[in-house]
Amino acid sequence: MSLLHDDRLFPGDPATRAIARRLFEGIRDLPLVSPHGHTQASWFARDEPFPDPAKLFVQPDHYVHRMLYSQGVSLDDLEIGVAELKDPRRVWRIFAEHYYLFRGTPTRLWLDYAFEELFGLEERLSAKTADHSYDIIAEKLATPEFRPRALYERFRLEVLATTDSPLDSLADHQAIRDSGWKGRILPTFRPDPVVDPEFAGFRENVLKLGELTGEDTSGFKGYLAALEQTRARFKQLGCTATDHGHPTANTAALGREECERLFESVLSGRADAAQQELFRAQMLTEMAGMSVRDGLVMQIHPGSVRNHNLQVYARYGRDMGADIPTATNYVHGLRPLLDRYGNEREFTLILFTLDESAASRELAPLAGHYPCLRLGPPWWFFDSPEGMQRFRENVTETAGFYNTVGFNDDTRAFLSIPARHDVARRMDCAFLAKLVVEHRLDEDEAVEVARDLTYNLVRSAYKL
Amino acid sequence: MSLLHDDRLFPGDPATRAIARRLFEGIRDLPLVSPHGHTQASWFARDEPFPDPAKLFVQPDHYVHRMLYSQGVSLDDLEIGVAELKDPRRVWRIFAEHYYLFRGTPTRLWLDYAFEELFGLEERLSAKTADHSYDIIAEKLATPEFRPRALYERFRLEVLATTDSPLDSLADHQAIRDSGWKGRILPTFRPDPVVDPEFAGFRENVLKLGELTGEDTSGFKGYLAALEQTRARFKQLGCTATDHGHPTANTAALGREECERLFESVLSGRADAAQQELFRAQMLTEMAGMSVRDGLVMQIHPGSVRNHNLQVYARYGRDMGADIPTATNYVHGLRPLLDRYGNEREFTLILFTLDESAASRELAPLAGHYPCLRLGPPWWFFDSPEGMQRFRENVTETAGFYNTVGFNDDTRAFLSIPARHDVARRMDCAFLAKLVVEHRLDEDEAVEVARDLTYNLVRSAYKL
Amino acid sequence: MSLLHDDRLFPGDPATRAIARRLFEGIRDLPLVSPHGHTQASWFARDEPFPDPAKLFVQPDHYVHRMLYSQGVSLDDLEIGVAELKDPRRVWRIFAEHYYLFRGTPTRLWLDYAFEELFGLEERLSAKTADHSYDIIAEKLATPEFRPRALYERFRLEVLATTDSPLDSLADHQAIRDSGWKGRILPTFRPDPVVDPEFAGFRENVLKLGELTGEDTSGFKGYLAALEQTRARFKQLGCTATDHGHPTANTAALGREECERLFESVLSGRADAAQQELFRAQMLTEMAGMSVRDGLVMQIHPGSVRNHNLQVYARYGRDMGADIPTATNYVHGLRPLLDRYGNEREFTLILFTLDESAASRELAPLAGHYPCLRLGPPWWFFDSPEGMQRFRENVTETAGFYNTVGFNDDTRAFLSIPARHDVARRMDCAFLAKLVVEHRLDEDEAVEVARDLTYNLVRSAYKL
Repeated sequence: MSLLHDDRLFPGDPATRAIARRLFEGIRDLPLVSPHGHTQASWFARDEPFPDPAKLFVQPDHYVHRMLYSQGVSLDDLEIGVAELKDPRRVWRIFAEHYYLFRGTPTRLWLDYAFEELFGLEERLSAKTADHSYDIIAEKLATPEFRPRALYERFRLEVLATTDSPLDSLADHQAIRDSGWKGRILPTFRPDPVVDPEFAGFRENVLKLGELTGEDTSGFKGYLAALEQTRARFKQLGCTATDHGHPTANTAALGREECERLFESVLSGRADAAQQELFRAQMLTEMAGMSVRDGLVMQIHPGSVRNHNLQVYARYGRDMGADIPTATNYVHGLRPLLDRYGNEREFTLILFTLDESAASRELAPLAGHYPCLRLGPPWWFFDSPEGMQRFRENVTETAGFYNTVGFNDDTRAFLSIPARHDVARRMDCAFLAKLVVEHRLDEDEAVEVARDLTYNLVRSAYKL
Repeated sequence: MSLLHDDRLFPGDPATRAIARRLFEGIRDLPLVSPHGHTQASWFARDEPFPDPAKLFVQPDHYVHRMLYSQGVSLDDLEIGVAELKDPRRVWRIFAEHYYLFRGTPTRLWLDYAFEELFGLEERLSAKTADHSYDIIAEKLATPEFRPRALYERFRLEVLATTDSPLDSLADHQAIRDSGWKGRILPTFRPDPVVDPEFAGFRENVLKLGELTGEDTSGFKGYLAALEQTRARFKQLGCTATDHGHPTANTAALGREECERLFESVLSGRADAAQQELFRAQMLTEMAGMSVRDGLVMQIHPGSVRNHNLQVYARYGRDMGADIPTATNYVHGLRPLLDRYGNEREFTLILFTLDESAASRELAPLAGHYPCLRLGPPWWFFDSPEGMQRFRENVTETAGFYNTVGFNDDTRAFLSIPARHDVARRMDCAFLAKLVVEHRLDEDEAVEVARDLTYNLVRSAYKL
Repeated sequence: MSLLHDDRLFPGDPATRAIARRLFEGIRDLPLVSPHGHTQASWFARDEPFPDPAKLFVQPDHYVHRMLYSQGVSLDDLEIGVAELKDPRRVWRIFAEHYYLFRGTPTRLWLDYAFEELFGLEERLSAKTADHSYDIIAEKLATPEFRPRALYERFRLEVLATTDSPLDSLADHQAIRDSGWKGRILPTFRPDPVVDPEFAGFRENVLKLGELTGEDTSGFKGYLAALEQTRARFKQLGCTATDHGHPTANTAALGREECERLFESVLSGRADAAQQELFRAQMLTEMAGMSVRDGLVMQIHPGSVRNHNLQVYARYGRDMGADIPTATNYVHGLRPLLDRYGNEREFTLILFTLDESAASRELAPLAGHYPCLRLGPPWWFFDSPEGMQRFRENVTETAGFYNTVGFNDDTRAFLSIPARHDVARRMDCAFLAKLVVEHRLDEDEAVEVARDLTYNLVRSAYKL
């Protein structure tokens, strides 16, 4: 028995499947390029073994524990928020007993891939196989082949970007460079902690940014200078991109005096919700201006209502699977930024969405016109076979393939990276195969597009 | 000739179809469980024959007469709103002449199923076959086999829930119990007439509720007590669920004093639209609290703009096919209720939608996190093959199968119930077959999921 | 080698494809009916040769130059906005080099069709084939067979509607009639220049309308009279329809005095954005009233944010590919108009959308109820294989086929007309074939529906 079929995710129709297979053969062995994600540089700096199976697969993966929680499993039983697991085997058993809940989800695809490809497990996870799989995984994790750097190489990663606060010293990134190891781990500049007035500790963060840079961040001018200086610091360690996680896609183009007053207001903590939103909006435009000047690619990930579940947030903190998407308006929201920088041909702004209804209505028309815009791949809840298929169906006819930027794995789960790229490559081949079988694209062109989506567009869009 | 093909609704690809067939064989004979709908308890209490074909198929079915009306057929010609049809055969002929309008609609599937399976008709309805089919149906309706109770048994119904006002004495439900008949007809508590200030006769309804319960419903405290008492009365007759048809999914969590003032305002008729909406919002949270205490499963059916056509409403009244869906915000709307009760593991709140764009964006992420939430099946305009397929495609990857609750027929048209379940079962098998053929799910698991979707999840979600 | 495969756009499954082929055989040779578009009557009045390939295919086609612009090609290099191209061959080469950008887009399908069917080109456009294709096209354009009237006949057009301002003398339409040529070129009444206060030159346009009609358009009464008179003038030249391009679907039903004040306000230029929107809303209702009286079919094309790119607008003007769709509310927006005229059975109002999320939620339910409403075909960004498929999937189950009106090519690109109808016919056959193979519709019915969608519904909906 095997968990993975070699034709997985390919359409059932034999003619279409045969084309998908051929296209996939052309790209399956291309290196992985991972320009956006949430792995930790410290893993590669220290290269220590990953801990036990529960700590690796259950605890940090909000895809996993949100589903378990939704079906009545307690987060305490999963030891969520606990630094040292008391009974990892018990956590693993709970997970295994509930593995059937993941039927039809991408989590199931990613986990099965890791279980079989990395750990050689061939039986479906269940209460029955829980202990055996736990033992096998735990045993392998202790071997040198399962250290972070070894896995990076085994995964054929060519580059892996982390996501970092401007307050981060990037010491781990520096340590990786100093170590002489060849792996390419790059930081990404994500300034939310010093840009979003609703971020916990915002005022302290801004002041700390001042200390780190020697700028006076109690005023807007020094604040901007500190951000520019920090971007330059990131660039020196290989950073090619910034990332911005905002509740909306709103941007603004205020005059300098109004900016100063607004900054004073948010820094003092007196700003109301509308002013906080306006500040974030203005800062997206400021960041776009900096990108025009320093060449960093800009990414916006908007539209998530963070920490929707107050009780879970109060008890367990951020990133507990309780972030919920909301409708996002790009056409009005982005206009101030685009008025100013939309026609800059050297500027790249990559847009993501959690609102699929905006894809064909707003995102593809915007990206199919503005020179600076590109569309990021399906994100978060939509990093899935159906989500990827809808993405291509919704955007290709208006924006084409070449206003998209290939795949992001965007994950905290390092071991799921090859599985996620595998799903993306297969789904792109499935989509292309349908175009070929319906004579909407010639196969020689599909071969080229498949390579572009998998490799070339990622490297060019992210300047890697 | 036959109206029904045994492979109907299964995908065209032979391999996928073969799997769908096998999955369907495993569930086609399971009993029907109908936890939400609009049949009348009086039918089963009295067990009288259904009237003529026009009165049965045309007059009460807004799916039918809305389509005819949209194409210029007059509601007067269809004798809509007439208690005793003057010329049912003429109405039937009009319907038959226009039967081609239903091509590609679920109404066509449901009607063909009833025509063939129940009445043995094998020729497509048209002007030519109108009289013959009328005669056959009329003849059979007069036989004992077509009485409500006989049909209930023939349909293999295991339970059938009606939808009832708190002002209803439930005498028919009591009569069914008293009769000794084994059919399980359960009431559902739908308090809109006493909760929605825009409901016709709201004030009188609330006062009548006071009379029925002996509570002083002129004050908020007595009003809540009267609702609780009525819920208990419903429970005694087997009720396991409540249902709430609101224009939005808004909820609120006001303080007690504000509730009292608001109640006074809506009861006096002085409340403006915003206050009326706020009252409904608050009442959803109150109802959730009662569900937490008394265990009744809560359903919300939001997002319909009722009686959109003023002229039709003025002349013919409610439920005339002129209710139109509108965009619905769940992520902000439900927050006050979820802040309070979202983490209650014994509480079940089943959400429905008429806004498909919310399915992948809001509903699946919410249901895939909150322990109390489940997703109801595609509703109303989406109780259809394409609607069902989109539902599974949109929600499964985030919420899985096990945060859904199986099928609701939700119908006034008793004779369409087997047809509707047949469509739902086939579409679930078609969806599962695609997962299997694409190696996203093993067939043994699909067999289990098919049974769960058809039978087990309905019973557990509705506590039947 | 060939650019076009005879099975293009048909599903890959052999059984489904065979049905699609049979259905297509039944309609492929039906005449083209083009009830809405943006070709120029002057072409047919003068019957002069079309200019060079670049001027014909690149310059006027915003689908083409928006994609090139989005990928960094400068509009100046494409000589956009230049009356006489200085170097059309150079423009053509730029286009050819970037032809790969159109992979997966409908533009590619339309262009390949024109290249092969009209010009006999069989090699894919690229840098390599640029000069050869330029020469062939240029050579053929100079021949009598490529004059507008000859092409009209070769395309088997039966009727072709243009879109015209109330300020247009329609001299070209008159000249066509006077010429004795049999082609049926009809004007469409599009009053935006005199109805939308944000239209450039609105006040002057309204005053000019007064001069043309002899009415006093400085007052609301004379303004309405002038519009009615102009509609009558259009009707005399064969016009059967009006068209309205508004930013929203809002309508209003104001009292006469409020209308007069509002008109005064917008005419004086003192109206704010809300008043301008209210005036447009009121005018839709006024136009509906006129349609009830004079029988002109009414079309609304709402939801486009025009000229989103300020820099491109300032430099190059309107229709430069920078119009972006936005979310559109029909259910509330249309209510005032429908309250007044929704039940008029002789009135036809055809609705279009750029917001696909409204299709199943609002448009199909509205059109499946109101006698006056019909749904226009997928428009603009959605005039594409995937857009057409989603349209049928989203609306058919609620509105049926018979509340839709067949295809519009809606194009400025005369040479793309046969290609666009070819795509629409094939996609309808593909959709119908799926229904047939899944036994949701019998094939004899599908044959009839295919003819209705292609020919009969267009003629009846537009009163042609």
